[in-house]
Amino acid sequence: MEGAPPEQSKSALKKAEKAAKLAADKAAKAAKQATLPVGQGKKTDDIIGITVSKTDNFPAWYQEVVIKAEMVEYYQEISGFFVLRPLSMHIWNTIRKWFQSHIEEMGVEETSFPVFLSAKSLEKEKDHVEGFAPELAWVTKAGDKDLEVPVAIRPTSEAVMYPYYSKWIRSHRDLPLRLNQWNSVVRWEAKQTTPFLRTREFLWQEGHTAHLTEELAGKEVLEILELYAGVYEQLLAVPVVRGRKTENEKFAGGYYTTTVEGYIPSNGRGIQGATSHCLGQNFSKMFDITVEDPANKGSHINVWQNSWGLSTRVIGVMVMVHGDDKGLVLPPRVAKVQVIMIPVGINKNTTAEDRQKHEEQLESIGATLKKAGVLVQSDWREGYTPAWKFNDWELKGVPLRIEFGPKDAAKEVVSYARRDTGEKGSIPIADVATAIPELLETIQTDMYAKAESAFREHRLKVTSWDDVLPALDNKNVVLIPFCHGPKCEDRIKELTTREEQTDVPESQRAPAMGMKSLCIPFEQPEGLVPGETKCLNPECEAKAVSWVMFGRSY
Amino acid sequence: MEGAPPEQSKSALKKAEKAAKLAADKAAKAAKQATLPVGQGKKTDDIIGITVSKTDNFPAWYQEVVIKAEMVEYYQEISGFFVLRPLSMHIWNTIRKWFQSHIEEMGVEETSFPVFLSAKSLEKEKDHVEGFAPELAWVTKAGDKDLEVPVAIRPTSEAVMYPYYSKWIRSHRDLPLRLNQWNSVVRWEAKQTTPFLRTREFLWQEGHTAHLTEELAGKEVLEILELYAGVYEQLLAVPVVRGRKTENEKFAGGYYTTTVEGYIPSNGRGIQGATSHCLGQNFSKMFDITVEDPANKGSHINVWQNSWGLSTRVIGVMVMVHGDDKGLVLPPRVAKVQVIMIPVGINKNTTAEDRQKHEEQLESIGATLKKAGVLVQSDWREGYTPAWKFNDWELKGVPLRIEFGPKDAAKEVVSYARRDTGEKGSIPIADVATAIPELLETIQTDMYAKAESAFREHRLKVTSWDDVLPALDNKNVVLIPFCHGPKCEDRIKELTTREEQTDVPESQRAPAMGMKSLCIPFEQPEGLVPGETKCLNPECEAKAVSWVMFGRSY
Repeated sequence: MEGAPPEQSKSALKKAEKAAKLAADKAAKAAKQATLPVGQGKKTDDIIGITVSKTDNFPAWYQEVVIKAEMVEYYQEISGFFVLRPLSMHIWNTIRKWFQSHIEEMGVEETSFPVFLSAKSLEKEKDHVEGFAPELAWVTKAGDKDLEVPVAIRPTSEAVMYPYYSKWIRSHRDLPLRLNQWNSVVRWEAKQTTPFLRTREFLWQEGHTAHLTEELAGKEVLEILELYAGVYEQLLAVPVVRGRKTENEKFAGGYYTTTVEGYIPSNGRGIQGATSHCLGQNFSKMFDITVEDPANKGSHINVWQNSWGLSTRVIGVMVMVHGDDKGLVLPPRVAKVQVIMIPVGINKNTTAEDRQKHEEQLESIGATLKKAGVLVQSDWREGYTPAWKFNDWELKGVPLRIEFGPKDAAKEVVSYARRDTGEKGSIPIADVATAIPELLETIQTDMYAKAESAFREHRLKVTSWDDVLPALDNKNVVLIPFCHGPKCEDRIKELTTREEQTDVPESQRAPAMGMKSLCIPFEQPEGLVPGETKCLNPECEAKAVSWVMFGRSY
Repeated sequence: MEGAPPEQSKSALKKAEKAAKLAADKAAKAAKQATLPVGQGKKTDDIIGITVSKTDNFPAWYQEVVIKAEMVEYYQEISGFFVLRPLSMHIWNTIRKWFQSHIEEMGVEETSFPVFLSAKSLEKEKDHVEGFAPELAWVTKAGDKDLEVPVAIRPTSEAVMYPYYSKWIRSHRDLPLRLNQWNSVVRWEAKQTTPFLRTREFLWQEGHTAHLTEELAGKEVLEILELYAGVYEQLLAVPVVRGRKTENEKFAGGYYTTTVEGYIPSNGRGIQGATSHCLGQNFSKMFDITVEDPANKGSHINVWQNSWGLSTRVIGVMVMVHGDDKGLVLPPRVAKVQVIMIPVGINKNTTAEDRQKHEEQLESIGATLKKAGVLVQSDWREGYTPAWKFNDWELKGVPLRIEFGPKDAAKEVVSYARRDTGEKGSIPIADVATAIPELLETIQTDMYAKAESAFREHRLKVTSWDDVLPALDNKNVVLIPFCHGPKCEDRIKELTTREEQTDVPESQRAPAMGMKSLCIPFEQPEGLVPGETKCLNPECEAKAVSWVMFGRSY
């Protein structure tokens, strides 16, 4: 349910892919060297961290971070696929537990439908199938035998599930029917892939529900959207704008689509966060899902359906928003290791007795933190300097570092350094059980506040067409008065697309990408009179219906 | 990692498949009728429950139970696939949480590798690939384009994952590397499929670990096996025998396989429960996974690897062991609804006031139980008699029914009925918060004890060859002195296979299936002197190595 890609010329695409692969290979090589322990050919502190600045080359920076922080591994065997490593899976599982507990409260039950769908069930809903057909992976052989009828791997499960909704829903007493599944789906993208953001297979949850009325369906659509906003805002410390998609951008075959939209400050692009769709009665008509109208015996009505999905894309957005030139920066609530404890001031001159005492003290602090619910780890690796370890854990985004040496012991404190701000300080050992969890919450809040202000400051109300392109070039998304016309929206994209400047070096080119609509925000700014204010497109004669958020986007 | 199938003639297979499909269709139809509310063509209590007795026709009984209890739905679109419904997913998730928490304690981390593998990586380990090649599903097309190189859907992930183990393991400090993933795998079975037991796609977890020494690997193999035994014994109330597989039955390409073996009393067949493999150094040699020997600088050693998997098959075994002619019987620890509360004695003559008071009382008891951690639900459906509801919840296996009527209210008790034994009784309302959880635990324990004694009584030590076939025909598995020879094992299977009695009606035929080895139990009975006692196969000259459990099996 991810949005359509930006248009790119084929050659530019190939070039970009090649560059990405080169960057990835280089990063992998560097990562391998960086983690060689001291004495295996490398001097202490001769660390190779992130080699590209986030500001200078954002795509290359991103590739390096997700690999070196050990979030993903490129799947060499088949392009467009990635291995999710434990650090990523911890984030995904944290999200999963949180979301699952909330939908369980709502009465959503879990299910597991097959990975395959037949061509026959696919054909039922034409708009829907047209959207996915180019990306379907087809199984045509089992062992060495050709299948009589090829089967496709699900790109989403509407066509897999709804024949059974027709079977299971026999009376209005069976409503609402609310099922969700956690699985992976395959969409064989022809476009350039990027870890988390656009991959040929991704993990997600897909909820599929049926209701008696439009009103009941609509209520759930928004409840789910609010949970998606919660995943971003409360867990990932990433701000989002809630809204509705325009006709051009809504889910193929659906009635309307609601969305949470994120923003990447580094390039000023919008990014679709997660979508919650009301399918209306389109699918229930195609798949014949009806109940007797309880208010009008004898007459049958088609049920109202929703579908909603949140994918591992969320992790990529989080990396892009919070990461810095030292690597990953993790919000404490999703970090696998929240606090890393590193012993310092221990050297050749330290007596065995002092060393043991120091170790015991540090482990006792660790035990206290564990008891307080903190995910803590201590780094006793031999042959690495503290500085090397600092860099290593910063690269991996651990929110808080605790340093503990003989000087700290003498003062009965621990020293700390925040990953997000670099701020340092000390905390009495006696207070760690309360002060550290509080500090982690402060980091979480501060990370959100910083990202929120970046998004707010770059969401510009634009009321003059001439201001649009400069606003985009200054890494903003824009709120403009818009008529909601599909053709007008296409035209706006064309009007804001620059010709590729082939005569200028790539790094100095102005962005060519046109803007598209991101959403119609639920929260509308002041200053627009529907039916009176003009649509901002200078070629458009129509009046604006509302403010709509446009931007260059993923 | 499921075992090899029984041999069956092609025509018998087709017949069985047809019969199964007919039974399924009939069951689905009946289920549809059974749940029609009163007044929609059916009289009260005119319920259609399970129509086949477990004793008379076990396979048909099983098909009916899993469908009517709403555990699975046949996937009409593609044969061999099934939909897992919320009742099944609750069981699987309970198992998942339990197992996950235990392996996390062991230091196993979660990962997610792609669903596809390339032909190239498959070819590395020949024994391994030969085992799976006939069941591989091949993707040859994406959209309308042929793939340059077809890719297979993983039947298991050794060949997907181990190229990365070679990359990630650079030093003995990186050991142990312990990764696990929860996913689904596809094995395009040519044989007859059965819900949960043998399906073309199934959910499982697959753990893949690497260790420095054989000893460390071996220790983990047994730790995991004990967790698998725990899933059966502690959660599903199903007894298992722990042991090692013979050479004939071990995992293709592995070093040795340990297993937990279950037993189905209704037909006397053994069934492989779950397997924990030591792969030895076979795969690490093929995939070049080495570290420098810490005890001998400069020389490199191949790591020792394990893989272990537990699938949704466990649910099928549970159904077969505990179910009865009324339907499913669920052990309380995995039941989605542990206690169903049904109001009784409310009728047309009840005043609205009394009715409301009754409702409030029942809901208050429910709230007390919820607070005590009991998964409780009350059935206020209108238009169904209590008797109809009793049958409905019995069909779905709910461990404990609470009935509550004006008479109970007057005595300040609730009446109950156990699903497993049918036993009835009453409990003072004041005691429910402690007495009901205790009763649920008693049910769990009793269910295990009953199944355990059935297995124990049907695990016969046989020391005379002539006793083997009669023992099998009396629904036993047998423990026999065995030489461990692969050819001898093949011959034992042949010697115990009967010719298909085509001249006798199917229901009266003696079972044709030969026996195969289930495992070499870790717990060996008395009375065998290795190297002295003869192998039981009358044609075999060799001495027995140990007692080995043989049986007809799934």
